[in-house]
Formats: sequence, C-alpha cells, structure tokens
Amino acid sequence: FNLNKLSLEDEKDDKSQEGINKASKGGLVYGEYLQLNKILNAQELQSEKKGKQIHDEHLFIVTHQAYELWFKQILWEMDSVRVIFQNGHVRDERNMLKVITRINRISMILKLLVEQFSVLETMTALDFFDFRYYLSPASGFQSLQFRLLENKIGVPQSLRVPYNRRHYRDNFKGQDYELLLQSEQEPTLLQLVESWLERTPGLDAEGFDFWGQFEVNVLKGLEEEFTLLQAKPESEEKDDELSEFQKQKDVLLSLFDEKRHEHLLSKGERRLSYKALKGALMIYFYREEPRFQVPFQLLTSLMDIDVLMTKWRYNHVCMVHRMIGSKAGTGGSSGYHYLRSTVSDRYKVFVDLFNLSTFLVPRHWIPKMNPSIHKFLYTAEYCDSSYFSSDDSD
Amino acid sequence: FNLNKLSLEDEKDDKSQEGINKASKGGLVYGEYLQLNKILNAQELQSEKKGKQIHDEHLFIVTHQAYELWFKQILWEMDSVRVIFQNGHVRDERNMLKVITRINRISMILKLLVEQFSVLETMTALDFFDFRYYLSPASGFQSLQFRLLENKIGVPQSLRVPYNRRHYRDNFKGQDYELLLQSEQEPTLLQLVESWLERTPGLDAEGFDFWGQFEVNVLKGLEEEFTLLQAKPESEEKDDELSEFQKQKDVLLSLFDEKRHEHLLSKGERRLSYKALKGALMIYFYREEPRFQVPFQLLTSLMDIDVLMTKWRYNHVCMVHRMIGSKAGTGGSSGYHYLRSTVSDRYKVFVDLFNLSTFLVPRHWIPKMNPSIHKFLYTAEYCDSSYFSSDDSD
Amino acid sequence: FNLNKLSLEDEKDDKSQEGINKASKGGLVYGEYLQLNKILNAQELQSEKKGKQIHDEHLFIVTHQAYELWFKQILWEMDSVRVIFQNGHVRDERNMLKVITRINRISMILKLLVEQFSVLETMTALDFFDFRYYLSPASGFQSLQFRLLENKIGVPQSLRVPYNRRHYRDNFKGQDYELLLQSEQEPTLLQLVESWLERTPGLDAEGFDFWGQFEVNVLKGLEEEFTLLQAKPESEEKDDELSEFQKQKDVLLSLFDEKRHEHLLSKGERRLSYKALKGALMIYFYREEPRFQVPFQLLTSLMDIDVLMTKWRYNHVCMVHRMIGSKAGTGGSSGYHYLRSTVSDRYKVFVDLFNLSTFLVPRHWIPKMNPSIHKFLYTAEYCDSSYFSSDDSD
Amino acid sequence: FNLNKLSLEDEKDDKSQEGINKASKGGLVYGEYLQLNKILNAQELQSEKKGKQIHDEHLFIVTHQAYELWFKQILWEMDSVRVIFQNGHVRDERNMLKVITRINRISMILKLLVEQFSVLETMTALDFFDFRYYLSPASGFQSLQFRLLENKIGVPQSLRVPYNRRHYRDNFKGQDYELLLQSEQEPTLLQLVESWLERTPGLDAEGFDFWGQFEVNVLKGLEEEFTLLQAKPESEEKDDELSEFQKQKDVLLSLFDEKRHEHLLSKGERRLSYKALKGALMIYFYREEPRFQVPFQLLTSLMDIDVLMTKWRYNHVCMVHRMIGSKAGTGGSSGYHYLRSTVSDRYKVFVDLFNLSTFLVPRHWIPKMNPSIHKFLYTAEYCDSSYFSSDDSD
Repeated sequence: FNLNKLSLEDEKDDKSQEGINKASKGGLVYGEYLQLNKILNAQELQSEKKGKQIHDEHLFIVTHQAYELWFKQILWEMDSVRVIFQNGHVRDERNMLKVITRINRISMILKLLVEQFSVLETMTALDFFDFRYYLSPASGFQSLQFRLLENKIGVPQSLRVPYNRRHYRDNFKGQDYELLLQSEQEPTLLQLVESWLERTPGLDAEGFDFWGQFEVNVLKGLEEEFTLLQAKPESEEKDDELSEFQKQKDVLLSLFDEKRHEHLLSKGERRLSYKALKGALMIYFYREEPRFQVPFQLLTSLMDIDVLMTKWRYNHVCMVHRMIGSKAGTGGSSGYHYLRSTVSDRYKVFVDLFNLSTFLVPRHWIPKMNPSIHKFLYTAEYCDSSYFSSDDSD
Repeated sequence: FNLNKLSLEDEKDDKSQEGINKASKGGLVYGEYLQLNKILNAQELQSEKKGKQIHDEHLFIVTHQAYELWFKQILWEMDSVRVIFQNGHVRDERNMLKVITRINRISMILKLLVEQFSVLETMTALDFFDFRYYLSPASGFQSLQFRLLENKIGVPQSLRVPYNRRHYRDNFKGQDYELLLQSEQEPTLLQLVESWLERTPGLDAEGFDFWGQFEVNVLKGLEEEFTLLQAKPESEEKDDELSEFQKQKDVLLSLFDEKRHEHLLSKGERRLSYKALKGALMIYFYREEPRFQVPFQLLTSLMDIDVLMTKWRYNHVCMVHRMIGSKAGTGGSSGYHYLRSTVSDRYKVFVDLFNLSTFLVPRHWIPKMNPSIHKFLYTAEYCDSSYFSSDDSD
Repeated sequence: FNLNKLSLEDEKDDKSQEGINKASKGGLVYGEYLQLNKILNAQELQSEKKGKQIHDEHLFIVTHQAYELWFKQILWEMDSVRVIFQNGHVRDERNMLKVITRINRISMILKLLVEQFSVLETMTALDFFDFRYYLSPASGFQSLQFRLLENKIGVPQSLRVPYNRRHYRDNFKGQDYELLLQSEQEPTLLQLVESWLERTPGLDAEGFDFWGQFEVNVLKGLEEEFTLLQAKPESEEKDDELSEFQKQKDVLLSLFDEKRHEHLLSKGERRLSYKALKGALMIYFYREEPRFQVPFQLLTSLMDIDVLMTKWRYNHVCMVHRMIGSKAGTGGSSGYHYLRSTVSDRYKVFVDLFNLSTFLVPRHWIPKMNPSIHKFLYTAEYCDSSYFSSDDSD
Repeated sequence: FNLNKLSLEDEKDDKSQEGINKASKGGLVYGEYLQLNKILNAQELQSEKKGKQIHDEHLFIVTHQAYELWFKQILWEMDSVRVIFQNGHVRDERNMLKVITRINRISMILKLLVEQFSVLETMTALDFFDFRYYLSPASGFQSLQFRLLENKIGVPQSLRVPYNRRHYRDNFKGQDYELLLQSEQEPTLLQLVESWLERTPGLDAEGFDFWGQFEVNVLKGLEEEFTLLQAKPESEEKDDELSEFQKQKDVLLSLFDEKRHEHLLSKGERRLSYKALKGALMIYFYREEPRFQVPFQLLTSLMDIDVLMTKWRYNHVCMVHRMIGSKAGTGGSSGYHYLRSTVSDRYKVFVDLFNLSTFLVPRHWIPKMNPSIHKFLYTAEYCDSSYFSSDDSD
C-alpha cells in the first residue's frame, strides 16, 4: 500500500478519473454562482487610497467582511426560526427538527466566529497603529447586522449600555435606523419562545397541574427534611445544616411567589413570564419523555447561543485591549471600557434558563406521571391538513 | 461587585460613556468601508431563481464565499512573502520577522478553514440533495484561487492528480487560464525557500564546511557504534541489534549519496536541491544559535502550512463523502474518489523538511562550532542603504 | 463601571464574598476526591532514570496520559450506550435522550483529542530524538484502550491492517489479551444499532410496507423521467442526459438487489444487514416525523464518531510523519506507513450510513404517510412496568 | 486507486508491514511507561460509594483530572522558563528559542483547556444535581496547582479577590500551605521578565539613550502637529481636533512622568518597573531588528498567556452559571459571583504590555538607529565557557 505508487499509467483504471467535465458544455460555473466578482473586489485599502499601502489593512478588511457574511447567515437562520414560531408552525411537532437544527447551526457559526479572533490577533498593535488613523470614523459599533441580531434575539432596549451617552439607535441613519426600529417592534426570539413555553402541555390546572403538584411536593419535601434535621442531637454541625436548610428553603419557596417574579421582571432580572418559567421547568424535569426530548434540546441550545454571544463579546474585548490599550475607538467611543461593559448578564437574553438551575430538587420530589393517563407525553401533535404538501414553505 | 447594579444614573461617571460620536460629523462609516453593499448582496439562491427557495442553499453559498474571502487573504500574504524572497529582501535579516509573521498568519487562517467545515456539516445529505441539482455544472474544483494557491506554494504540475483524465488547467478558460499559467511560471514559495536555504551560512567548503565535517562525524560515529556492538557476546539480541544498526547505517549513508538525491528528485520524491537540503539540516542542528532561531521557526511554519493544507483536503473529503456518498460531483468529477486521491504526499510541497527527521543523529555527532571563530552565527545581516526609510515597501 | 474600582472595603457587601468555607470543617477535599496523589505522581521520565533528564519527555508522557484518561471516558460512555441497547431499554423511547447525549459526548471528546495533537506538535523532531531511544519497545500501538474502543464500535477483525504481518491481538498478553478477545465477542455498537434499525416501525410488509412502496415509486419515477427524456429532440445534450440517467438508474435499482447487498457484505464493503439498511433509509426520509427526529440525530451522530475517529488517525499520521520522518516506530512498526494504511474506509464502521446518500431520490418519490393511519409516527413506546422507579439503572 | 482493493495478499510487499515487533522480546511497554495502573484506577465515584452510581460523575472526575494533568505540564514549562531567567541563562541568547518555545507551549495547552469546557458542558445542570451533593466540601477553589500557577506567573497577593472574606492561602493546610507560601516568595515570571527588560540594550543614557531621544522626538512631534492644527482656519472641526490633540498629548506626556508611574505601581494599576517599561517599548518599536525579533515574540506570547488565563476564567464562569445558577459552590463559596469577580484586569499579570498600545506614535517619531554604530542590534550574546557541553541542563 504505497500512496506514491500511483503512476499516471495506473490512473487509467482509476475510480478517481471516472467523471466527465460538465462545465465544458456551458452553464453556470463556480465563480459566477458565488458572485466572486463582487466578493473578491470589495477590498479597498484606505491606506493605499491615501498614499501608502499598509499590508495588514487587507487582513483587517477581510476579517470584518467574513464576520458580516456570517452575521448574514445567522440572521437568515434566526429569521426562519422566528417565522416558524410566529406562524404557529411549531405546534406541528414535525417542525421541531428544523428549529433545533437551525439553532444549532447558529451555535456552530458563533463558535467559528469566536475562533476567528485568533486570525486578527496575528496583527500586532503596532501594525494596526500604522493604518488605524485612516479608518476613523468607521467603527465596529456601526455594524447594522450585529445590532439587528441583538434585537431579534431579544436584548431589551432598556438594558442596553448607551453608546457615548446616546441611545444606540441614534447612531444609525436612514434605512438602517428604520430596520433597527422595525426589529425592535417585531416579536423577538425570546418572546416567541416564551409563548411556546406557556403552551407546554401538562401545565393546565385542570389537567396534570404540574405547578400545583410540584408546590405540594416541595412543601412536603422541605418539611420531611426539616424533621430529619431536627431529630439530630445538638451540635455545631447541626446548626450549620439548619442554617443552610433555611437558605435553601427560602430559595425554593421564592419560586412560588408570583409577585416576586413580576418584580424581578420589571427590573430586568427575569425575562420570561411566570407561566413560561413553569413550562421551562417542566421540560427540564421531564426531559426524557419523548414529547420533551427535542424541546429540552432546544432550551439547551438557546443557552448555548447566549453563552457564545457573550464569549464573542469577551474575545472581542480582549482583542481590542491588545490593539489599542485604553485609547478611544476609531468611532470615538471609549473603546475598551465601552466594550467591557457589554460583557454583562444584561445581554444574556435567556438568563432565566440558566437561573432555573437554582431551583432543582431531588428527583423523588418531582410529581410522577403515568404514561397511560398522561398520553400527551407520548403523542405528538400534527397540524396541517395538506399533509406533506409543502416542505420548506418557511 | 454586582454586574447588575449598573443603573443609568451611575453611567454618568462611567468610563464606558466617555467617548464622542465621530461618525455623526460625516466621513466613511463601517458599511461603506467594508463595501457591505457588495458583500451582503451576493447571495442569490439558484433554487429560488428556479422556483422553489431551499433554505439551506444560503448556507452553502455563504460558506463558500467565506472560503474564497480567506483564500484571497492567504494569497495576499503568500504573494507578499514571495516578493520579499524574490527581491532578495530576505538577505536583510530584519525582514525575517515579517516573513515568519505572515507565514504564521496563513497557518491561523488555514486552521480556521479546517474548522469551518463543521458549519457546513450542519447541513445533512438530504438537505443538500434538495438543491444540489440546481448547482450543476458549478463545482469546487473550479475555484481559481485554490488552484493558484497550490501553484504558488509549489505543487508541481507533474504530480497533480488529473481531473477526469484532463490536465487541471484545461478546466479553466480565458483570464483564469492565463492566471494559472502565469502562476506556474513564477517562482514558487518552494523554489524561493530553496534558494534561500542554499545560501545558509556555514555550508561553504572553505569556511565551516558543515557537510564535510558532518559526514566525517557520521562515519566515525557509526564505526564506534559498530565496534561497541561487535564487542558484545553472541546472542539473538546482538544479532537483532546488528541488523538494526545496518539498516540505520544504510539510511544515514544514503544522505551523502548525491546521485541518489538527484534520482529521487527526478521521481518527485524529493523537492529541494541537494544544497538546500544541507542548509535545512544545518538549520535543524544549530537552531538555537541566534542567527538560526527565526529560520528554524520558518521551516517549522512551512511544515505547518503543508500539514494544514492536507488536513483541509482530508476534512473536505470527509464532508463530501457524507453529502453525496459515492455519487459524481456537481461538476461531473468522480466526487469522493477524485478528492480522496488528492490527500496524498504528492501534494505535500515541503515533504523534504518532514523527511529530514529520518536523518537525525545524536547531538555529539554534530560538528561543534566556536562562536569566536564562527561569528556569522551571532551577527545578522542588514542590507539597505536607506535605513528605516521605507517600512512596508513590499 | 470600573473593574478596578473594587477595593477591599467594598467587598464587605460583595455578593462574591457571601459564602462560607465548608472545607474548614473536614470532609473529602478536591485533591483527595480526584486522587491527585496517583494522577500527579505518575510521570517518571525514562531519560531521567537513565541519567539525563530531557525536558520534553514530560510533555510526551502527560499528553499520552491525557489521551488514555479520555479513552477511558469514551469507553465509559460507549459501554453505557451498549448496555441500553443490549437490554432492549432503547425500546422505551425515553432512553433515546440518554443515548444521543452520550454519543454526542463521545463526539465532543474526540474533537478535543483531535485538537490535542497541536500541543504535542510544539515538540520538534529534534526534541523527540533526544529521548526517543529510551522509549523502545513501548509504542502507541500497545494502547489497550484504543484497541478496545475500535472493537466495541465494531471494526471487524477481518478488515484490520495487520501489525508487522501479525494479528493485532497477538501483540498483547495476559489479561489484556483476554479483554480484547472478550470485546471481539461482545455485541458491537454496530451490531446493536443494526438490530435496532431492523425494528424500525413502518418496515413490515403487512403494515406501511415502506420498502415495497418505495420500490414501486422508484420504478415509476424512473419511467416517467425516461419518458420525458425520450420526448426531447435528438441532440448531444440529450445523449449525455440519457447516459447519465442510465447510470443513475443502475445505481438506484442496485438498492433493491438483495443478493448484491449480501455480496458486498461478504466483502466488507457493506456492514449493515439489508433490513437495517432499509430502516436507516426510512429514518432518513421521514426524519421530521416526531418519532424519527431523535433516531435521525442518532444516525448523524454515529457518522460524526466515525469521521472523528478517522480524523484522529489522520492527525496522528501527520504528527508522526513530522516526528520521525519515514523511520520505524519505537515499537518496531514501520511507523508512518503502518499508520497511513489505517486511515482508510476499512475502519469506517458506519460506512453504510454515508453511502446511503448515494440513494437519495426526489421528495415526491417518497411514499406518503397519513398520520391518522400511521399513528406510530406520533406515538412513542414505553416499556417498563415500574414507571420512574430507577433512573440510571444502566 | 481504490482504498478497499488492499487485500491480505497484497500486504506481503506492503511498506506498512515492514516492521518487527520489538515488544515481543521484553522491555518496558506502553502501559507501564505511562503508569496507566495509576492513571486509569483513580476514578472512584462518590455516588457509587454512597449507594447509587450516577453515570455522569465519571465525566466530572475525568475532566478535572485532565485539567490537573495539564496544569502539571504548565507548571513544568513555567518552572523551566523561570530557571533559565533566574540563572541568567537568558543572557545567552541561544536560550531564547527554548524560552519562546515553552511559553508558546503553555499557550497551546491553555487553548486546549479553554476548549475542554465544551466536553463538561455536555452534562446538564440536572445531571450534575444528581451527584453534586456528594462532592461537598470538595471545590475547584482547592486546586493547589492552579493557585501555584497564578503565584508563579505573578498574580500579586494584594490584588487577589478574597475567598469568603478569608485570604486565599488560609484555605490550604500543611504541605500545600507551605508550597503556596514558597511560591509567593520565589521570583515570579513577571519579576524575572521585568529584570530582563531592564537590561534591554540601548537604554543606557551614555549609549543610544533610547528614552532620552524618544522624549525629545515626542515633544517635537507634538509641537509640529500643534502648529499644523493652529494654522487651520477656525471651525468646529478644528476645535474638535484641538481638543482631541490635547487629550492625546496628555496621554503621551504622562509616559515620561516617572512619579505618576510609581503612583500607579503602588495602586497595582501598573506592574513593571519604569525601566522595564522603557525596555518593553523599545522592543516594540525596534521589533524588526534581528536582536529584538525573538524578544518581541516573547512579549506577544506573554500577553497570549494572560489573555488565555482570563478566557479560561471566563469560560469557567459561564459553565458554572449553567450548572448551578446562582447557588453556592460545593465548597461553600458564593459560586458564580465569586468566580465572576476573578475575571478582572486585576488578574492580568502583564497588563502593562497591553497598555503600551496606548503610547504608540507615528513611525517617524521613533529615534533612528544606525546599524554600523548600534551594533548591539545585530550581535547576539553567548555566555557559556563550555560551549555545547550540556544542552538541557535546566
């Protein structure tokens, strides 16, 4: 077995040579299909235009163009998912595979984009300084697509860090301003997921009544634990355990305090409605039920996206710190300090899904279901009358 | 320290808000600088044009455009390095930092591109099948930039796997054909590195005469080892050791057989001239000497590029296997089998640098240098008369 | 918002300081839990033992130990999945989430292990040469866990590349030999997946009869296409299309030739039974049906593992080429050439899942199902009598 | 060329089968060399010990053991670099290749460790909850090696975030406490790099006097710029430019204010001595000079390590948030909030190297050197009398 043995003679019987050249007979070829005339002619160096070509500006441009290309793809996926949710298509469980696949694709792209900083970091601060002056007043802050992305996921206007004391949107004009405004008014991914969670089967008080049963179990569980603790002989250890028990009890009981939830909502510390929160917790607890397996994957993937967005921001900050130290940005912002302030839980849209981990309980506290009664766990919904008629109508 | 504490009031004294908005006063902004009108309007789905939009075709287009953007950047770096070598600028050792930085940048980009397949792999074979038919006869084989890249690094025409039994170049027309022809005629990175290696200080027979001394040492070393082995009492183990010694001796002596080298060169199993090979081995052995530290890094980086190109090919093959099984490619090639045949040592341009590992010897066989005599190891060259006049004249 | 503002005074009200130190009151601490006395005292440099410590040997040891740690984890996941399948637990659809999660975890680990070569590659061939001699006759080939892994996934003995012309197992002794023998006799992941695929609902001839209907549709589809082609006026293009149509027809019809399948099976070019192949294709085609969403994810993940194993092999080969050129391995193998021969489709266990892409057809050829008749698509199975009794009984 | 063609018969002439089995004749084999009996028998599940094996605890243990293995390797490299600096071996420029290679290796390991979180993240909060209780009071905070690593790089005690209001060291006992104390007293990497930077050739006032000349040039440059600005006709734009000029001038002049530097040092906002800072800036500006190429790479690599440590911390925080929401850690810390507070510039040891980007100036302001006078730029030092005697004596 010798890879080098392959001589031109051998190739006559070679599977690798069995094809024919279709392109020789005309038709759309690779470069035309991809419109490479546009893509590969869009690198104009300001340094060159202004008299002295700086080699590394090319890297700077290409890197940002690659970011924008991928942002477009993320928006493409995000919009398609939002349409499925918005049109209620997600009620047909067949659409869940599409939803989860596209959300996962967004994750894969974001992972690549986090990685992509390593390429730009091959440029040193000194190389950047050589052409940085030519860029002003252009600035990454002006990326329309990134702002649209934040809006469409569901970063609330009220929690945004201002940009040089002005509303972020006031930094855009004309059509861009309109697009941003519109994206603020459309239902966000957060809101659409919220409505979907509110419809989680099993929440109805007349049916399985998950929440009611869950509260009963928690109260009973806590009482039993307290009785066990009390029965122990007095000791420093017992005191510690009691104090810890009390803390844990307070945390768990707070979950059933709807007023507190509304209060946290109003402060932006929670983002999902109370009912949606119940639905999410239900999916967490019953994730192995056939009906909830893909929904559970979806909740996990939404957290992935949140985390990756935040890692993207953090990697961005690190790179900027390296490039410009504590100087102002090319667009005039405070640079490092502005960006640092956006790496915050404020920008975590699905923060409630993370915080649900605070409210986990032992498995035997979870209300039991009986599959012969609670059939919805094993039976999925389908919706369209014209079955299989259109596949990709989104 | 509470990330959520940050209220709008606090922000008045907030460093993150100290900037001003330069863009509000006019000038080139982000989207114009990056020519996003071109970049973001170059995604035209054939499936849509032909009546039925297939969602995943957008991903297919964007992924390939991202590849082409990065290929352009790689060519930009590759060309700049070739110019430095070609104009002899590399004789001024100050240019070595630039060379090594840019070669490393190519590595970083290639790593990203290997990673990038993971995004396209979120598309399944079935999703691809839905629009695949629309693409024909476009095919990845037609990527001009990738072929240019191969040529500029130094993939020799004689070792290329034919494409459907035709010379690769015959699949291109007009200006593309001319560009390919030209790239075959220009000095390749391999040839430029070869010339540079041939000038490695210390090779001259009148000077340090590395090669002469090295051969002497190897012969002496082998003899001593043989004597030691012979002195051992007869045993099966001794026989094994003797037979292994003989093998090792044959390998090492073959290094000094220039005719054999020329023969291997003619077969394409070696790519560097004999003199260049000597230079490379010298840099290997004396890599810690100040003069050779960056050259040694360069040799390592060239191997990195070779390996990464080959990993890119391999990841490409894996993806194609998944997408189309053993079907023909959209351009008519045999698809998987064609691509599989290109993951071969034939396409490793710097294969000699890898194979040098075959000829390593114990450190005490390496001819010793005396820093007070062999000053070239400690003194770097500078060349230009107009010192510091132009920085980035390449 | 100033990260540096945080003074020690501020910390008094600081959420980050609200905890208590549990460890101060005794109990198992971190180092004991992880048995770090074992883990961190297992690095004994042979070079040191034999008189001269070579710095890089430490990296060599730690890297291999990290590989083995992760191999253990992969085996842990693989074994647990095999138990679920073997005990028929997978019939209870609730277990599918566990299966898919664990298979995905194996993927994530393999990705990390592919990445991990980049650490070992910071060691150059020259650094390795300094201690390589001390290692003989130890060799990576002797990794018991890697061989077990191959066996448990389902690399067949008959397709293994021999190791120096001997059966791979003959290179192991005592308990290791027995473990390997046993792993060859246990049902492999491939076999377990095969049995599971054979039970795909919808295959029964009395029920939906997917295969029967599919064959009918394919024949009809091909006929219609042929009629359309025939109706075209004579031209070179028509001839090309007809010849391509014939090829495609031969490919598709071969799918219904069970004898041919058995023949390919006997040659090792197919690995799944004919019935399992039908099941897999059914899951491909109806992947959006609720019942098949997670099974489809599983088939995709199995291909991921196959591809990642093969990428691991390929990255290994690349590293070895760099380290030792074309020398023999420390264990005496032919080194690079031996490893190169294992990067082959022979070692792709789920190769049939890849090749199914060869048999895709237009969506309207796929037999339609009616959800009100084919209820199994919307209803999952559950099996255990003692519902919710044990969660992690595997 | 068919990969499957390879039959057992063919293999008789197969290069891949040319080796011999050395291990069959005795000697140390793979498993013994790596002490796998220790490594692979160190996974004891607390959940199993306490009655109910929880599958995912195995992943938890293995992941942490892999972290600790790599921490050991990082310390191995870090210690070896510190010894080279400490013994003054770095004065012999031949040692710089070793230093840079090892620092880069630490970077590669840290990159892998950042990646490694993706494996642990396949475990959900609910899976973790099932065995979390068994772990207490063990906690990641108790990782001795991580604390040693922080100390050896140079995280100052005064800037450490306390752990539950106690000094971090008070959470360790016995030998561990002693090791930590010792690591605080040994010269840190930061201090060693500082001394080395202070010796940067070209700083001496009697020689090239970089700093003196640089100050002159900056003053002159600023004056010229001011004159140009003043000559412009009055306008709002001119006012803006003047105000920006003043800011920039203040920043640049502050660089020459040694008292201010001492003040910032005392507050922990700077970490390098004034002289070392000068050396670092000199290396930045003259990085292309042969003498400074590798030193410049070193400064870049030190920033890499800093950034990667901080990314590791950030990825850790993200994972913890997901796993436990805002609960307390198993060791009793405040968990998420404690960890969040350590992702701070306080823990960036080489923060001065980042901030130097604040002080970049146009290239023509940099004092010019004449290679025939300033020979130190082209001549490297060598030190040892016994040349080539010992290679790896560190």
